[in-house]
Amino acid sequence: MSDSDRPTPPTPADFTFDTLRPVAFLERAAAVFADRTAIVDGDLAFTYAELHRRVGRLTAVLDGLGIRPGDRVAALCSNSHEMLELHNAVPGIGAVLVPLNIRLSEAELSYIVEHSGASLLVATVEFAEAARAVGATAGIRVLVSGDADDEYRTLLDGAPEPVWRNVDERGLLAINYTSGTTGRPKGVMYHHRGAYLQSLAMAYHTGIGPASNYLWTLPMFHCDGWCFPWAVTAAGATHVCLRGIDTAQIWRHLTDDGITHFSAAPTVLTMIAEDPAAAPLDHIVEATTGGAPPSPALLARMSDLGIEVTHLYGLTETFGPIAVNQWQPEWNAGSPEERANLKARQGIGNIAAGVVRVVTPEGDDVPADGSTEGELVARGNNVMLGYYRDPEATAAATVNGWLRTGDVAVVHPDGYAEIRDRSKDVIISGGENIASVEVERVLDSHPDVVESAVVGRPDERWGEVPIAYVTIRDGGDVDVDELVEFARERLARFKVPKEIVFAQLPKTSTGKIQKTVLRSRYEGHIGQTGDT
Amino acid sequence: MSDSDRPTPPTPADFTFDTLRPVAFLERAAAVFADRTAIVDGDLAFTYAELHRRVGRLTAVLDGLGIRPGDRVAALCSNSHEMLELHNAVPGIGAVLVPLNIRLSEAELSYIVEHSGASLLVATVEFAEAARAVGATAGIRVLVSGDADDEYRTLLDGAPEPVWRNVDERGLLAINYTSGTTGRPKGVMYHHRGAYLQSLAMAYHTGIGPASNYLWTLPMFHCDGWCFPWAVTAAGATHVCLRGIDTAQIWRHLTDDGITHFSAAPTVLTMIAEDPAAAPLDHIVEATTGGAPPSPALLARMSDLGIEVTHLYGLTETFGPIAVNQWQPEWNAGSPEERANLKARQGIGNIAAGVVRVVTPEGDDVPADGSTEGELVARGNNVMLGYYRDPEATAAATVNGWLRTGDVAVVHPDGYAEIRDRSKDVIISGGENIASVEVERVLDSHPDVVESAVVGRPDERWGEVPIAYVTIRDGGDVDVDELVEFARERLARFKVPKEIVFAQLPKTSTGKIQKTVLRSRYEGHIGQTGDT
Repeated sequence: MSDSDRPTPPTPADFTFDTLRPVAFLERAAAVFADRTAIVDGDLAFTYAELHRRVGRLTAVLDGLGIRPGDRVAALCSNSHEMLELHNAVPGIGAVLVPLNIRLSEAELSYIVEHSGASLLVATVEFAEAARAVGATAGIRVLVSGDADDEYRTLLDGAPEPVWRNVDERGLLAINYTSGTTGRPKGVMYHHRGAYLQSLAMAYHTGIGPASNYLWTLPMFHCDGWCFPWAVTAAGATHVCLRGIDTAQIWRHLTDDGITHFSAAPTVLTMIAEDPAAAPLDHIVEATTGGAPPSPALLARMSDLGIEVTHLYGLTETFGPIAVNQWQPEWNAGSPEERANLKARQGIGNIAAGVVRVVTPEGDDVPADGSTEGELVARGNNVMLGYYRDPEATAAATVNGWLRTGDVAVVHPDGYAEIRDRSKDVIISGGENIASVEVERVLDSHPDVVESAVVGRPDERWGEVPIAYVTIRDGGDVDVDELVEFARERLARFKVPKEIVFAQLPKTSTGKIQKTVLRSRYEGHIGQTGDT
Repeated sequence: MSDSDRPTPPTPADFTFDTLRPVAFLERAAAVFADRTAIVDGDLAFTYAELHRRVGRLTAVLDGLGIRPGDRVAALCSNSHEMLELHNAVPGIGAVLVPLNIRLSEAELSYIVEHSGASLLVATVEFAEAARAVGATAGIRVLVSGDADDEYRTLLDGAPEPVWRNVDERGLLAINYTSGTTGRPKGVMYHHRGAYLQSLAMAYHTGIGPASNYLWTLPMFHCDGWCFPWAVTAAGATHVCLRGIDTAQIWRHLTDDGITHFSAAPTVLTMIAEDPAAAPLDHIVEATTGGAPPSPALLARMSDLGIEVTHLYGLTETFGPIAVNQWQPEWNAGSPEERANLKARQGIGNIAAGVVRVVTPEGDDVPADGSTEGELVARGNNVMLGYYRDPEATAAATVNGWLRTGDVAVVHPDGYAEIRDRSKDVIISGGENIASVEVERVLDSHPDVVESAVVGRPDERWGEVPIAYVTIRDGGDVDVDELVEFARERLARFKVPKEIVFAQLPKTSTGKIQKTVLRSRYEGHIGQTGDT
């Protein structure tokens, strides 16, 4: 590397040096990890010095396009070098990143772009057409990377001096729109301070370092990739981009590229385990999962493949994982079943989190008895500032300053929280609560079952009854009656599904099973209780 | 553990949950690591739930003794459960900890106690007598632990409800007095935010976790033990106390107690390597060192013993290690000599540090050529607030908001800084700084002495020992033994010159004493001194 490649340290005139902002990790990486590979994106690879220089150029491009502090810049990007660059350049000039879910319809994208008031939309080539349509609707500038024109590259190549701006650490860093299962998407506001601390926590809990390679299976648009765009950079590890979920390609990366870390929802882990190429790895891979508890069967299968899973828990509203299933060394002595049951719990606040509690409707802590249910609530630096331009929704989501997660949980005697269900997924049958998760775990433990989803069907007599949708493994020969009998041996009678349907499960772009879609099949059904 | 042992989570009325303060790590540890061993101190051992309860009681004791927010509490303690408890209880009630160097003379201790305005002095049994004398001089309350009365224990046993108070994260956490290179000790002011971030950085860089055991070879009174009292707690690791440096005992801990981590100056590492019990360990121990670069021979010897050394760099003014010799995986391929040379460099800012630079007198960065010297300067969250009640010294230590370390360094082409010369007048003996000026002033105060110059002579055991060159007045009849005795009455034992030479002092044309000339006499010389 030549001398001119080395980034010039910022000078006192430009910055206060104690501002907590995740972009600081790139500045440090450009100094200490200058020659290490920062990112591999297909045939492209950049060192940290190069990435820092490109991000600096992107700040100049953004400035040239009229982006000022506080302006919103929307991104419709795959997991790519562009998306990583935007995660640093947009906050680097004091603007606000609005990552867009690539699976949304143009109408949904247009709603978010207009609601956020974005004045620029940056897109990778896969989404050029959608981006141009959305940009035309919103009447804003669209910048596309990777197509025939490649305006992104052209502007970067001709960019003047970087435009770094200091920020208020409690100021707006990003707006991450939720999928909005209950109406319009809501814009979750992230601040620099929260993302900085969450990045440190992720780096600590994953033990990621300069010898690590992080595979981008998790969408960067989702909760800003749980802050891993900054955490991986802080560690000096290599970002390996994956522009779409392709399990065969994931296995090529795992076996050929020395991947040491990745993050994925349990459904994606299931897909990885089910891929024909799945075979035990010759090195340990640390996977972080969240969004739903990994089933004991899945954990055992991952472990056989050399993939050790850490279970994290969080929401878009908590910068991704606010809680961690902090593994206790003594637990290694347990049976696979015991270990899996311990690991299925959501755990406790991460090292930099504030406080995570499970409370009664009156706000008192539930007893740590493993059975009394309450709602999981959270406070601290990695809780959102609120919903953008939606004070009513913000007020509804908080009580006495605590964020309501909407998750029903118990606290075990060792202090670890375990979610029984999403509030809206609890099935109430004959006055008894049925945690759909509990029924699903039993079904998932059958060797022929890949995954399952249990929802309530309105019922005149019981209010609701549990119905299971189940995906069977290729070559599996279990039938419905056998599976009902299997459940009957392991569950209280009222929890056994009244009907089992073999089917592929509908999923969101992040791999979450869409129970709303399953429930919607019962709309208009006699005695229906209504769906949120 | 019974239910009553489990700490009650703080409630919204008591706290804002986003305050960065290192005591938060104990609260988290009490929840997630409740039953893990927090501390072993001789025959005593407490779990994190017990430690948290004891600290809560100590807050009540402090409150009962009249300690109010902002009040200073001095501690004259060995590495002990009491010192760890004070590191949490004193900031826990919003008061300010003043850790005292146990090797200072009563006169020096009294100066610091009075300068800090401490209204309480807590001492472990080893220092009961000195503490009572200092307390009497200052006219303040002294609380002793571990003697026949054991008032500390009595008060803790009878303590009422804990008194936790929230703090301003930029408010005063501790005052750590330097040894005073140019005169009186200066009180370095730490804030909660800096200690919190430094703790996270230490936890990340050492990879410490709940299966780790940290041996307290580093004095907790020294820069608040580089923030390890909180970092080890954040990780849920076990603190293993070492009330004095005893290398045979260190080896018993290393071999019998599963020690995985410790911190020590290179001189202490040398003592450990030289101990008759030294033999290769059956597990890897991660040692962090600082204060002086570890020599290649030392690093090789440690590696043979199974002790991997990470080189850190910092000052009292930077919460301990602000820089880290961040190891690059490729360096493992080098020869032992190459690896040692790479590791001897002080490196770059740690993951949570601000910016560390090497600058010319005009404040420009020196070129990264490995040869141009400049002064190492630093900014960021782990730089002190300033010197307590000493605005002149604070102003002298900073330039344009940057802390001047007084260390002369170069920057290598890979961006790593390497110190060429410690601030030349400081003698480092057994890991402690000795200000030559302070010793000279004592010698100069003898009626027969014209002038003196004190320099460090290399020493196998202590790193350096102070040697004095003294010019005697014409007609003066003091002899060497009398002058040594004169110094002994006025200085801490380790500061007393090990050798006094009557001589004319070499000077520059402008009359400055040339210490480099005196030091050059010891080039290539490694002496051995039996005792302090």
